[in-house]
Amino acid sequence: MTVKETCLAAKANVNAVAFLTEEERNQMLSIAADALVARAEDILAANAHDVEACTRGDQFKDRLMLNVPRIGGIAEGLRKLREIPCPVGEVIERHTTESGLEIERVRVPFGVVGIIYEARPNVTADAIGLCLKSGNAVVLRGSKDAYSSNEAIVGVIKDALKGAGYNPEFIQLISDGTREGAQEFMKMNGVLDVLIPRGSASLIRSTMENATVPVIETGTGNCHIYLDETADLQKALPILVNAKTQRTSVCNACESLVVDRPFAEKHLPEVIAALREKKVEVVGDEDSRALCKDILPATEEDFYTEFLALKISVKIVDGVDEAIAFINEHSTGHSDAIVTENKENAEKFLRGIDSACVYANASTRFTDGFEFGFGAEMGISTQKLHARGPMGLRELTSYKFLIRGNGQVRK
Amino acid sequence: MTVKETCLAAKANVNAVAFLTEEERNQMLSIAADALVARAEDILAANAHDVEACTRGDQFKDRLMLNVPRIGGIAEGLRKLREIPCPVGEVIERHTTESGLEIERVRVPFGVVGIIYEARPNVTADAIGLCLKSGNAVVLRGSKDAYSSNEAIVGVIKDALKGAGYNPEFIQLISDGTREGAQEFMKMNGVLDVLIPRGSASLIRSTMENATVPVIETGTGNCHIYLDETADLQKALPILVNAKTQRTSVCNACESLVVDRPFAEKHLPEVIAALREKKVEVVGDEDSRALCKDILPATEEDFYTEFLALKISVKIVDGVDEAIAFINEHSTGHSDAIVTENKENAEKFLRGIDSACVYANASTRFTDGFEFGFGAEMGISTQKLHARGPMGLRELTSYKFLIRGNGQVRK
Repeated sequence: MTVKETCLAAKANVNAVAFLTEEERNQMLSIAADALVARAEDILAANAHDVEACTRGDQFKDRLMLNVPRIGGIAEGLRKLREIPCPVGEVIERHTTESGLEIERVRVPFGVVGIIYEARPNVTADAIGLCLKSGNAVVLRGSKDAYSSNEAIVGVIKDALKGAGYNPEFIQLISDGTREGAQEFMKMNGVLDVLIPRGSASLIRSTMENATVPVIETGTGNCHIYLDETADLQKALPILVNAKTQRTSVCNACESLVVDRPFAEKHLPEVIAALREKKVEVVGDEDSRALCKDILPATEEDFYTEFLALKISVKIVDGVDEAIAFINEHSTGHSDAIVTENKENAEKFLRGIDSACVYANASTRFTDGFEFGFGAEMGISTQKLHARGPMGLRELTSYKFLIRGNGQVRK
Repeated sequence: MTVKETCLAAKANVNAVAFLTEEERNQMLSIAADALVARAEDILAANAHDVEACTRGDQFKDRLMLNVPRIGGIAEGLRKLREIPCPVGEVIERHTTESGLEIERVRVPFGVVGIIYEARPNVTADAIGLCLKSGNAVVLRGSKDAYSSNEAIVGVIKDALKGAGYNPEFIQLISDGTREGAQEFMKMNGVLDVLIPRGSASLIRSTMENATVPVIETGTGNCHIYLDETADLQKALPILVNAKTQRTSVCNACESLVVDRPFAEKHLPEVIAALREKKVEVVGDEDSRALCKDILPATEEDFYTEFLALKISVKIVDGVDEAIAFINEHSTGHSDAIVTENKENAEKFLRGIDSACVYANASTRFTDGFEFGFGAEMGISTQKLHARGPMGLRELTSYKFLIRGNGQVRK
């Protein structure tokens, strides 16, 4: 099928998921999870084919590779979705106008959600699960490096749903792996209601630049930690080390340390020593290097860079206002934190930082649907339109107005 | 100033509006309204210059032209905005996690809103008012045909705000009237938080196709009225005539009539006569023409067309399911209505039609912020991302998460 035919097939079957009950959709999640486990061998065989054909590096291959525990984890993710209440159908507000019109705003699925992603087969099942649970049809466009794996996962889930009497054609996988196919997918206006890129900064940028359908920008996180004059060193060190080193390849990891001058003058060497103990490469501005000889010179580019590695940039500022201005200039609007014992500065920072998640005295690593108590997420939105921060089930819905009258006309 | 410089100027002054109190912003609306009235002569002189230079048709000139009553109306619109409560600052939800993090989701302004529009100077003041009230900076890009008028309106408002001690630089007007300038404006990622096109279908399409910043699609309304078998003729005729003829140039006017066969067999000639009495040109499919000789043949294109004129297309269907399928295929997702005495069919239609506003037994002309009781609107969104239907103050906001901790790190 062409890209267009694939998208139209999802659209034609949108009611096969939108009009089911939550109980039915939960049952489908169970069926899908069971099938993935039961047919793990088929999936692993297809995956082995992809891994064999792959000429990329080890890190790439590791993300591509599936095994029995990984498939178990994917299935468990689908099962967990059953427990998260789905907001579809919720009456958000309701009122009656003077002319007697009853106006109801109700939450509805988007309709058709497009997902464009890289060579991570787990995203295939995750995205199917989130779309299914939120009543959306889904069109998946993964990397051609993972096509056999994706085809196997989609096939196993669709076979199982069909076997249980459900129409599974609201799930569609694009087989066209060309760049032109991706471009066509991004311009499926009138068919795709929203397109969500999941993956690297370059995939997200390319999607933003080329798509004509509405896109939700996710992911890139150049996250900052600001140590204010009154920061408690016993909180600052664990927060910084956690945010920088607990997991470096994730979007909520810290990439830049901003330090108030009086605090830096007292504690910067200790702070840097704590990072270097964890093998973090530290680059910084001249002021920071004057205070601590272990800091290498930073380029201007470093302050805009999401390292996703054991590397951090350091900037010295004069007070919370300069910190806010510096962070708003360099942050990607994902997650930024202040460490301070000064409540006024904390509130100023919370209010002034223009990011999806702003922390006082906690690690940026908490920006995550599960950590926030919202459950599984499709990604972290760094744009302000529609969704900001963790995008869970609610963020995969829209609303519409239902207006019930009795012959009213406008005067 | 270049397009980029103009946008950056708005961004640099975003806090000049975002951090004011609602009382201050209401005062600014009063000041702006008073200034427009007091300096109406300056505005009219600039407008006369635009109208004189304009070589377009009468309808175009009528939209471009200002006069004292029109300026009074624009000022009154700004004053009315003071009464609508602004949702900025609202705590949407709040909870504490097991680890003791207090998570708050609060409503915030977008930041910088871009508006691209045609030669209607009233949009200049409306957009400034809505952005000001919702705490947003605004970059306006009107038509070059209305540039003198826009410059005068913006100048009068900014002078008055400055005179009252406010920094008015969160309001910016793009002076570059070239097509390249418009393209550049649509790609101001990292500066514009959202871009809203207001105007014709072609402007909206061009914005959707060219913008890389998040866009809200507004406006185009190919709205349908479906007369079900059990429709009450005494409700159907006024609803249809109101929706088609009360005002033809608006997006919530009816463009297509869909009739259930049994109803058409009984009443179609009467229905068409009521439209023809209002001088409506009626085109229809073969089945409708067999039932009523006053119907001219419709092209396939007619069923996809927003006429914005005294013209309507007619389609005969067999039952509510076919009506829903036909409307979902041809509608622009703006407003569609069923007229029926069958409650089950009404609910089926309300649920099944994939449009922003779905009506049972009322005119589509009610799709309007004021009619819904929400107050002034920036437009009617026909997309599903972020906002759907009337876009008022709430739809000009985003949210962010504030997380207050006490040294928490992620395990």
